Amino acid sequence: MAFDVSALFRSGLPAPAAAPFKAFPAYNFVGGHNDGGSIPVQELTEAATRVLAREGTSLATYGLTSGPQGYRPLRDFIAGWMHDSAGMQDSADEILITSGSLQALDLVNQLLVGPEDMVIAEEATYGGALTRLARLGVPYVGVRLDADGIDPTHLAELLEEQERAGKPVKFIYTIPTVQNPTGGVMPVDRRRAILDLAARHNCLIFEDDCYADLVWSGTRPPSMRALDAPAAQAEGRPNRVIYCGSFSKSVAPALRVGFIMADWPVLAQILPLKTDAGTGALEQMVLAEFCKDHFASHVNRLRARLKAKCDITIAALEENFGTAAEFTPPLGGIFIWVTLPDGVNTTRLATEAAKEGIAINPGAEWTVDGPDNTTRMRLCFGHPEEAEIREGIARLAGICHREFGVPERISNATQS
Amino acid sequence: MAFDVSALFRSGLPAPAAAPFKAFPAYNFVGGHNDGGSIPVQELTEAATRVLAREGTSLATYGLTSGPQGYRPLRDFIAGWMHDSAGMQDSADEILITSGSLQALDLVNQLLVGPEDMVIAEEATYGGALTRLARLGVPYVGVRLDADGIDPTHLAELLEEQERAGKPVKFIYTIPTVQNPTGGVMPVDRRRAILDLAARHNCLIFEDDCYADLVWSGTRPPSMRALDAPAAQAEGRPNRVIYCGSFSKSVAPALRVGFIMADWPVLAQILPLKTDAGTGALEQMVLAEFCKDHFASHVNRLRARLKAKCDITIAALEENFGTAAEFTPPLGGIFIWVTLPDGVNTTRLATEAAKEGIAINPGAEWTVDGPDNTTRMRLCFGHPEEAEIREGIARLAGICHREFGVPERISNATQS
Repeated sequence: MAFDVSALFRSGLPAPAAAPFKAFPAYNFVGGHNDGGSIPVQELTEAATRVLAREGTSLATYGLTSGPQGYRPLRDFIAGWMHDSAGMQDSADEILITSGSLQALDLVNQLLVGPEDMVIAEEATYGGALTRLARLGVPYVGVRLDADGIDPTHLAELLEEQERAGKPVKFIYTIPTVQNPTGGVMPVDRRRAILDLAARHNCLIFEDDCYADLVWSGTRPPSMRALDAPAAQAEGRPNRVIYCGSFSKSVAPALRVGFIMADWPVLAQILPLKTDAGTGALEQMVLAEFCKDHFASHVNRLRARLKAKCDITIAALEENFGTAAEFTPPLGGIFIWVTLPDGVNTTRLATEAAKEGIAINPGAEWTVDGPDNTTRMRLCFGHPEEAEIREGIARLAGICHREFGVPERISNATQS
Repeated sequence: MAFDVSALFRSGLPAPAAAPFKAFPAYNFVGGHNDGGSIPVQELTEAATRVLAREGTSLATYGLTSGPQGYRPLRDFIAGWMHDSAGMQDSADEILITSGSLQALDLVNQLLVGPEDMVIAEEATYGGALTRLARLGVPYVGVRLDADGIDPTHLAELLEEQERAGKPVKFIYTIPTVQNPTGGVMPVDRRRAILDLAARHNCLIFEDDCYADLVWSGTRPPSMRALDAPAAQAEGRPNRVIYCGSFSKSVAPALRVGFIMADWPVLAQILPLKTDAGTGALEQMVLAEFCKDHFASHVNRLRARLKAKCDITIAALEENFGTAAEFTPPLGGIFIWVTLPDGVNTTRLATEAAKEGIAINPGAEWTVDGPDNTTRMRLCFGHPEEAEIREGIARLAGICHREFGVPERISNATQS
């Protein structure tokens, strides 16, 4: 009998990888990568040296000496930083270090939702959150976004509809600060309105704040979790917001360290679901040691650098796409959400661009309407160098012109 | 309406954590921790400094520049080490770095099994593997162990039974080299016998080799994956063995780096299931840089240290339990599998011992018969210092005497 190993695989798995990884595309506008020159190599090295000399032998125990919630000094730093920057009152006991914010998404999903439940997501949102829900068979519905984020009127309608349908919403997944992909920041009054609706309909809010440290202005609104805290305390109830953050965007994506902030009854039930024997300890130790001295100054520098790249991206879009590319300049982060004219199909554009070494996220990957979303694209400007941004966008305009006649005219430089 | 957050949790979750972690027990004979003094702090620091100076900016991209299978120099080291130590022929392309071997277990389970399947596990085996299968609703059956590991006669019976029952076995989960918990090493002829049976019944072998570098003798048999390779090649079929290893036991548990070795068709289907955006890069970089110069000499030193602790544990068992504690001295690793007389209930012993700061794994946690296994216990000697081992085992004997009259006599020192 011939041995067909794939006959032993489970059914319904995602498509297999085509081949081992070779290299990143030449013009890489996807993936949440960050600016190479901004990695604080020297400070990270010094932090590693210091913390290993002081505590290196603790690597002999799972969880170091801090237990399953993660390295205590890192949790202490996070508690302090989130207090100062986002008005949060949580202590280290309300923090769980995760292996990137993606593990936070997995854990919250495991805690709360299955195919019998319902989730509300922003109509344009992080693609990885949507694919996770889809893999678990969890239905979701999209809520409209305006310039200030979630539209409360539409949210109220959806929450009521779901209740009437006997399938009340378990949680609202939102990225209020530097929304992915719009780059917008939800104002405080809007945050309060969303919280009120969640309270009225007894659902939770899952606040994904991974980009919040990258607000250009350097000042971000209080987190939704912070805004719910006074009422929660007054009413003697748990906070309605489960918060997640990350160091991937503020320090380095390849360091897989994120965190959840939630009330103890929530964390207590998440802990037994985190069965990985702890998040990488060296990464936690080095980050904690680095952050206590350098985090604030580092994110200041990084923000300025990313803002400069953002400006270059905007200039390149205007120069090469003209009025065909519509977008609202982001208020922080590493991406721009672009709308192209009707008639363009960004999924096909992405495919054509990939053949010429240009990677973009088509709207289909980053929206609840998926394949029906044909005119949007997300461009990440964090990683490519200035020249790559200019050249990549010029080439992309050339391909878009060739395939869709949009933009109508392109400069000579981009005709290849 | 009062807000009861737990009413929103999914049903069927494991028990929540009781309280935030405080500290390890004073006499810690559980958890796979390792010897603190053996952590190569200086070499790890030098490795971190070197690799960050050379490649630190690559932290700006997910997966560094190596893609989703993990840091290429680490995969190259693993390929070389596994070739030299275990006879394996795999290249870096057949290796996937995982966030500890526990993620390897999760990925292999996701790839292969659901509630409709069947798995064979060794009758005494790693508890975390059993709880994972149970959480997924995957049924498993235990195969008998003798001094050389899996009993092939019993394995043949089970495989046939399952086929007759229309529920053929998907994979055999085995820890052939430094079996957990027995500490035995399966000889080559036995490995071949198991491989033959797997071939005859068209099932896979999942070889968990996390302790293999810790064989006292310094020489381990070829891995089962290595032994299947020539036939696989001759027959033009995939290797029947999915292999997993780890650096948790050989370098440091708190570094969360393990790996899977499998044929590309298997890895290609595992890759889209690994949705964590990569395993911690700093840990991979530092490990790779450390290992190429120091791994061999480090494990030599570590083995000697652990063997000394093992000898102390054996002496303490003999001194305090006398003939009441039966065990086969392990051939490597960090634990001893002890059988106590009928009448002892090790689950209750573990509970009583915990009250006095002594942590042990009762047989119920480490065997397929679970609660029915009342006379076994696993003692990990990797982490406690010599004095803690002596004192902890003396105290444990005192508690066992008090609760079960076993051992019949205890020395004065242990009467507390």
